[in-house]
Amino acid sequence: MFSKLKIMTGNANPLLAKEIASFAGIPLCETEVFKFSNDESFVKINDNVRGSDVFIVQPTCYPVNDNTMELLIMIDALKRASALRVNCVIPYYGYGRSDKKDQPRVPITAKLLADLITVAGANRVITLDLHADQIQGFFDIPVDHLYSMPIFIRYFKGLGIETDEIVIVSPDSGGANRARAFAKRLECSLAIGDKRRVANDSNAEVLNVIGEVKDKIAILYDDMIDTGGTLIRISEKLHELGAKQVYACCVHGILSNNAVENLENSTIDKLFITNSVPLPEEKRAKSSKIVQLSIAELLASAIKKIHLEESISLLFR
Amino acid sequence: MFSKLKIMTGNANPLLAKEIASFAGIPLCETEVFKFSNDESFVKINDNVRGSDVFIVQPTCYPVNDNTMELLIMIDALKRASALRVNCVIPYYGYGRSDKKDQPRVPITAKLLADLITVAGANRVITLDLHADQIQGFFDIPVDHLYSMPIFIRYFKGLGIETDEIVIVSPDSGGANRARAFAKRLECSLAIGDKRRVANDSNAEVLNVIGEVKDKIAILYDDMIDTGGTLIRISEKLHELGAKQVYACCVHGILSNNAVENLENSTIDKLFITNSVPLPEEKRAKSSKIVQLSIAELLASAIKKIHLEESISLLFR
Amino acid sequence: MFSKLKIMTGNANPLLAKEIASFAGIPLCETEVFKFSNDESFVKINDNVRGSDVFIVQPTCYPVNDNTMELLIMIDALKRASALRVNCVIPYYGYGRSDKKDQPRVPITAKLLADLITVAGANRVITLDLHADQIQGFFDIPVDHLYSMPIFIRYFKGLGIETDEIVIVSPDSGGANRARAFAKRLECSLAIGDKRRVANDSNAEVLNVIGEVKDKIAILYDDMIDTGGTLIRISEKLHELGAKQVYACCVHGILSNNAVENLENSTIDKLFITNSVPLPEEKRAKSSKIVQLSIAELLASAIKKIHLEESISLLFR
Amino acid sequence: MFSKLKIMTGNANPLLAKEIASFAGIPLCETEVFKFSNDESFVKINDNVRGSDVFIVQPTCYPVNDNTMELLIMIDALKRASALRVNCVIPYYGYGRSDKKDQPRVPITAKLLADLITVAGANRVITLDLHADQIQGFFDIPVDHLYSMPIFIRYFKGLGIETDEIVIVSPDSGGANRARAFAKRLECSLAIGDKRRVANDSNAEVLNVIGEVKDKIAILYDDMIDTGGTLIRISEKLHELGAKQVYACCVHGILSNNAVENLENSTIDKLFITNSVPLPEEKRAKSSKIVQLSIAELLASAIKKIHLEESISLLFR
Amino acid sequence: MFSKLKIMTGNANPLLAKEIASFAGIPLCETEVFKFSNDESFVKINDNVRGSDVFIVQPTCYPVNDNTMELLIMIDALKRASALRVNCVIPYYGYGRSDKKDQPRVPITAKLLADLITVAGANRVITLDLHADQIQGFFDIPVDHLYSMPIFIRYFKGLGIETDEIVIVSPDSGGANRARAFAKRLECSLAIGDKRRVANDSNAEVLNVIGEVKDKIAILYDDMIDTGGTLIRISEKLHELGAKQVYACCVHGILSNNAVENLENSTIDKLFITNSVPLPEEKRAKSSKIVQLSIAELLASAIKKIHLEESISLLFR
Amino acid sequence: MFSKLKIMTGNANPLLAKEIASFAGIPLCETEVFKFSNDESFVKINDNVRGSDVFIVQPTCYPVNDNTMELLIMIDALKRASALRVNCVIPYYGYGRSDKKDQPRVPITAKLLADLITVAGANRVITLDLHADQIQGFFDIPVDHLYSMPIFIRYFKGLGIETDEIVIVSPDSGGANRARAFAKRLECSLAIGDKRRVANDSNAEVLNVIGEVKDKIAILYDDMIDTGGTLIRISEKLHELGAKQVYACCVHGILSNNAVENLENSTIDKLFITNSVPLPEEKRAKSSKIVQLSIAELLASAIKKIHLEESISLLFR
Repeated sequence: MFSKLKIMTGNANPLLAKEIASFAGIPLCETEVFKFSNDESFVKINDNVRGSDVFIVQPTCYPVNDNTMELLIMIDALKRASALRVNCVIPYYGYGRSDKKDQPRVPITAKLLADLITVAGANRVITLDLHADQIQGFFDIPVDHLYSMPIFIRYFKGLGIETDEIVIVSPDSGGANRARAFAKRLECSLAIGDKRRVANDSNAEVLNVIGEVKDKIAILYDDMIDTGGTLIRISEKLHELGAKQVYACCVHGILSNNAVENLENSTIDKLFITNSVPLPEEKRAKSSKIVQLSIAELLASAIKKIHLEESISLLFR
Repeated sequence: MFSKLKIMTGNANPLLAKEIASFAGIPLCETEVFKFSNDESFVKINDNVRGSDVFIVQPTCYPVNDNTMELLIMIDALKRASALRVNCVIPYYGYGRSDKKDQPRVPITAKLLADLITVAGANRVITLDLHADQIQGFFDIPVDHLYSMPIFIRYFKGLGIETDEIVIVSPDSGGANRARAFAKRLECSLAIGDKRRVANDSNAEVLNVIGEVKDKIAILYDDMIDTGGTLIRISEKLHELGAKQVYACCVHGILSNNAVENLENSTIDKLFITNSVPLPEEKRAKSSKIVQLSIAELLASAIKKIHLEESISLLFR
Repeated sequence: MFSKLKIMTGNANPLLAKEIASFAGIPLCETEVFKFSNDESFVKINDNVRGSDVFIVQPTCYPVNDNTMELLIMIDALKRASALRVNCVIPYYGYGRSDKKDQPRVPITAKLLADLITVAGANRVITLDLHADQIQGFFDIPVDHLYSMPIFIRYFKGLGIETDEIVIVSPDSGGANRARAFAKRLECSLAIGDKRRVANDSNAEVLNVIGEVKDKIAILYDDMIDTGGTLIRISEKLHELGAKQVYACCVHGILSNNAVENLENSTIDKLFITNSVPLPEEKRAKSSKIVQLSIAELLASAIKKIHLEESISLLFR
Repeated sequence: MFSKLKIMTGNANPLLAKEIASFAGIPLCETEVFKFSNDESFVKINDNVRGSDVFIVQPTCYPVNDNTMELLIMIDALKRASALRVNCVIPYYGYGRSDKKDQPRVPITAKLLADLITVAGANRVITLDLHADQIQGFFDIPVDHLYSMPIFIRYFKGLGIETDEIVIVSPDSGGANRARAFAKRLECSLAIGDKRRVANDSNAEVLNVIGEVKDKIAILYDDMIDTGGTLIRISEKLHELGAKQVYACCVHGILSNNAVENLENSTIDKLFITNSVPLPEEKRAKSSKIVQLSIAELLASAIKKIHLEESISLLFR
Repeated sequence: MFSKLKIMTGNANPLLAKEIASFAGIPLCETEVFKFSNDESFVKINDNVRGSDVFIVQPTCYPVNDNTMELLIMIDALKRASALRVNCVIPYYGYGRSDKKDQPRVPITAKLLADLITVAGANRVITLDLHADQIQGFFDIPVDHLYSMPIFIRYFKGLGIETDEIVIVSPDSGGANRARAFAKRLECSLAIGDKRRVANDSNAEVLNVIGEVKDKIAILYDDMIDTGGTLIRISEKLHELGAKQVYACCVHGILSNNAVENLENSTIDKLFITNSVPLPEEKRAKSSKIVQLSIAELLASAIKKIHLEESISLLFR
Repeated sequence: MFSKLKIMTGNANPLLAKEIASFAGIPLCETEVFKFSNDESFVKINDNVRGSDVFIVQPTCYPVNDNTMELLIMIDALKRASALRVNCVIPYYGYGRSDKKDQPRVPITAKLLADLITVAGANRVITLDLHADQIQGFFDIPVDHLYSMPIFIRYFKGLGIETDEIVIVSPDSGGANRARAFAKRLECSLAIGDKRRVANDSNAEVLNVIGEVKDKIAILYDDMIDTGGTLIRISEKLHELGAKQVYACCVHGILSNNAVENLENSTIDKLFITNSVPLPEEKRAKSSKIVQLSIAELLASAIKKIHLEESISLLFR
């Protein structure tokens, strides 16, 4: 029944791809994805893919441009090799933050990326926790947008904390809606960070938290953690305002620069992330605070249902 | 110098179009836009438009589908009549709320609309206060996205209220970012409404306001006011929480159903809207609370600068 | 065998859609198609449609722009919901008369509509008695163009009138070809109306009929009846020229303005139309002269054959 | 002023192109258009065309496929040579009769041709007396559709015949509308040919003429004359029905097979055609009945006005 | 299993198509492909092709433009007749030599042709020995590029000549790579022709051969033979340099002008070609030197494997 | 006159861009092109570019994917900022070697790149010495393909070597055509390398040189030098065959891995390259054998002529 289903990976997150393939019960498609000496990426697919329903697992994470070009080149190779349907599984959609023109003469790279993926020949995108839901609309091909929230909800419910002890904190107003959805499903209260520059001093900033946090377990909730600077500063403020504990819960663990060291030295008690983006061993070793929850089973279920043309609505519960 | 600049209107907001043309110092292009007896919309342009830089002023407001189809048909007529550049001035982008797939098997009509406008032959869109900034990315043609905020800011600053007396209130978490930007430019504080359904009772709702409002002038800030129901309920809550006065400031005054009557009978003291959408005389007569600020000069400036290939950055101040 | 076939309707002609589904032996797909309070159309499909061969029944009749936008939005929703093939069953193709540029600076809305349907994501159109056959060529996706003529032929043959008693009359030269095809299949003679303006008097018109009608049963044949004005005037002329009886036979019964009242008071003896467009109860009640023939079985047969990849040629007999 | 205007020709109708260029007051652009020994067409443009507004004069007449491919190849060469705007002047649009699917599994080559012209890179089409007006809608680029009717009208008015002596005859119902427009502008009456196969005998045909022709000068009016067979048979019928004289007036003089010999031997008194298609010397020599009216000045005027972005409406008078 | 596989032909090479169909074990699809009296090509398909996987066999050989337009028109007819997949089998890709802009203001007709095939609606191209491998990249649809080399290799190996007796000669540097690949697989040596114009005399040319040919059997290897002039001159030079025998081996036997007569009178001992292009009886009769090897079985195998979604890699051995 | 001409650079080769701008007599457009901490590339243009004719100088050299994405993002930013025309100056077209499918299931990345550049919004490409001329045909937008050959010819002619002393050597048969063109313009002889694997030993290779090299100055000519391995081995063979001196002349100096060290230690006497790709100081310091010729003046001339719509043919002399 799954004979024409194929799962393929580039170099972006091969561990996740293997885990997904294992949940799907099939081996990864044999593929060589590497760079020539002249720094050009190349792909060679060693399995026949004619008439196949191929799922490429490739988040566009660090190194962003290499992973992006690899993805596009894999799509091109599959299209020219007569694959029936090319599905891009992009659990972390890099460039998602460049989703609007908020200053003059800047690109909307998240849309550009959608156009590139489409012109290369993709037929579908499966993604997870986009920076903005509107990015789905950047595509005219179907986008199956999954959420890791049920995984986090199950995890936190499993911990047995009283929900009226918890406050979900959005680090800024832009994430308020996401944090509210989390708060609603956990049936707990909400607070929002509001960072402002002090007039006449371009360096000084003042950080407010709107909403009650005193004597609560504060869970900072966001779609990604990059350098972690903002989260660390808000954590300090939350402690100052009387929060009992501060957790951070971020879908995509980018953790660039010295994020892991800074986290380890911060007042954040735990950081929960998924494996949408690989967490290299050398980073993992630097902090005991990071808990990584796997999205592989969720993605494998989605892939199987999509291949069998079944509804994926159940995966949102 | 402006000899090849033309401004045209359909039936969506002819008053606004006339006001814009007047600020631009040119007459409206002679055009007939009407319905045949069989209910089909038709357009006939009576001026030569070959090689012209034409700006169609047509918000996709009520009646939404008629105005949308009129816009598309005008674009088609201009393209076939050899206009050099077809610019759509859509100060209210109807269908903007359908900007994501937040439940299974629904459309993303805001993207569909972008595709329709593009395939009809438009070369540019000029719009105002989109429901989501990401809608710019739904287009591959240039979008000049203007904001009415400077107009509101100038207005409120002109009233001479102390900014520490004011709190800007977003009616929900989805609008938090927009409200925060307003609060930041007015240098005042921020609060956010959070409406939740009471468990086990699908009708009962509880409404919280996160942030301090006591003894303040609360300004509810949003991109549009539709039936006004939510704003009216929040206004009651704000009064209950000690707010001195409640204003509402909404860019696009949709005011559907009995919105105007309900507003008149509500605890909202004033509603500030723009003329992006027409306010019919019969509605205007029903309430003394509505203050309409004109965007015509802003749009006329943008049109002139775009026609002359000048930067429009100054218009954001 | 039909498990992946789905039939769906918007608000244009739900009765016809139900009748078609009933002939096809399957229930209508569960769909909500409605307007929000802000006048925007919305669609929500409640059945899984992944991998399905979906047929949307939606003529673009009155209210034309609402039905058109509903159609486009349904296509968008289906495409994003991963339908395998989106087939638009448009038994009346509104805007079909705007099929050429016969004066300066007018649109070709029939082509625009084809482009809109295509860009929204449709894979096929099934239609009936287009105003001009060339409209098929406005599409690059397959168009299955059906004709109601066999239904009318069967009906008139069933009446047992001698064919040499009948003359088919085209109301104008533009419809001569259509009327001739009908005359040829009924093996009877042909006449054509020719309305001319009297020189130097823009209001006076003179109406000629080219061809013999004396002592004949005249059947006015056209693709649609809108206000009915022309048909009523020709009927009078035909009676004047000695016609024994005058029938009108028009595929699409638009019947706008006071068409039904005027028909009832006219010298036309009977009007035969199909149910491509709904005939509201309040109109039907106003005239006993209207006979409506159903196209549901024809469309259901076409849908089944197309779904099974069978030839539809037989349906033209 | 005309420095950037260029007129170019292939091998379809170089005489017409030269005549047009002469009316426009500029030399033809230096171009080599020929076939290699392997039968492949080739184009080499010897003038710089960067930034130029180029008009290619190339009807798609006999040899149809060679002229069509030459046109497409010239467009490609101009596009790659950075022409600003590529305008195709196609006074005879070959394949215009394949404008609909009137039997199963046939092409709509007139639409295919429009798509080929567009994908090759054309920006505009200027054409004359299309077989069907709807062909304009096969294009999404602007089409300037000219008519030779004013030329014929001026010619016939110049002859000083009384208009009530004349009847315009359409050879079949498909051309009734075109003939009626001619009759209306000449202020004379109309008749229509109706050819039917005799039942049970596939070879025998009966030919009727609907309308009065007795004692009249009959002018057969059509968009093209191909083999001339139908026109010759109708001419006989018209004489039989008492017509005094029979003229034929056909925009495009295809005159294939033995058309010219047959015409010379027929009861048609004169044939009026334009020079949209070349009339080779060897054909011209075979009949004294052919009168060719030139469209060069009309096309030159259109080209100049289009280049200068002026309205071409006046050319329709 | 093959029930939905269909093979169709135009007038380019019907013998090859029949041979392919015979190897595939199915009859040719019933199709009429002819010209009307007005020189326009027309196609009518008499079998139902809905949902079929159709392979059109049509090299774009002499008459090049007729065969090209026929191909495009067949694609259009199939697309509109709802074929599932339109595969173009183009064993000789005419216009392949116009694959680059090697002088100012010339077309790249090989790319234009790819765009025409794609816009007409083709889903795949199967071709043989393209003039340049890069032509595959002119398409965004899958191209299955086959090589006749294994057929030639098997043939020459079957002759039992010692490979160290053979030298493969490329007629010019442009074909060096192709000749080298042949030499490598035959395990023999390589030589290359280098024709230069003598300075100050535009007619005189000097012809060098780079590499050893003395006492060898020289096999001139090229993708096509057109007039044969260059090959004949190199053959003379090779004899002059001491070659024992000279064969020519050219995939596509264009043989235009007096190529066959000239070949017969030349020092070339044998010419090996395939049947990618038809060799008319009257040409075949003029020379006993031509050996034609059939590619029908190769193409039939490719078609079957592609239809069954099997890898075609084995066909390259 | 040049007021609307703008030249812009990313991080690929800013030195070349500056040199070009200097020759063009205008400053570089103010632009910020950098990476965020999350490794995403970003562009911000600080000059108004509305209505401007912008030339982006950006070879897609090392780091290939970063430079490619930067290029695409700059195009997107310019398009959305209403630039009139976006011209990509790509003096080294990375991924040019992936220009065909020479093994199963590989991409044609050179075509993919063309599609990416086009969909991003570029209007023109200006490039230099493409790996294959056919890559021009991968684009449907105009490509101005320049050659550095005149620069090398002038250089070598300036050295005063007798041309009958020189032999141009192509390292392999694939480059034979390029080497021949160089030999022809220098009026000297030609030789070609032919590397073959020894049967039954996958590691051993034998290297032949076809053509005379004894007592000559051999100039290895190729479009690029990557690791330099092949060139170094051929140089040894050339010395072994009696060549007096060996130069290498390669347009694009990729020089990856230890290319420079290996060159310094090789028997190649001099390497001539252009500055299409930057030569970092640390590489330059490692070898005294490298001579870099500048293409800046050539590119500046092309840019000015293209901006002024002048022919660039003269630049090929």
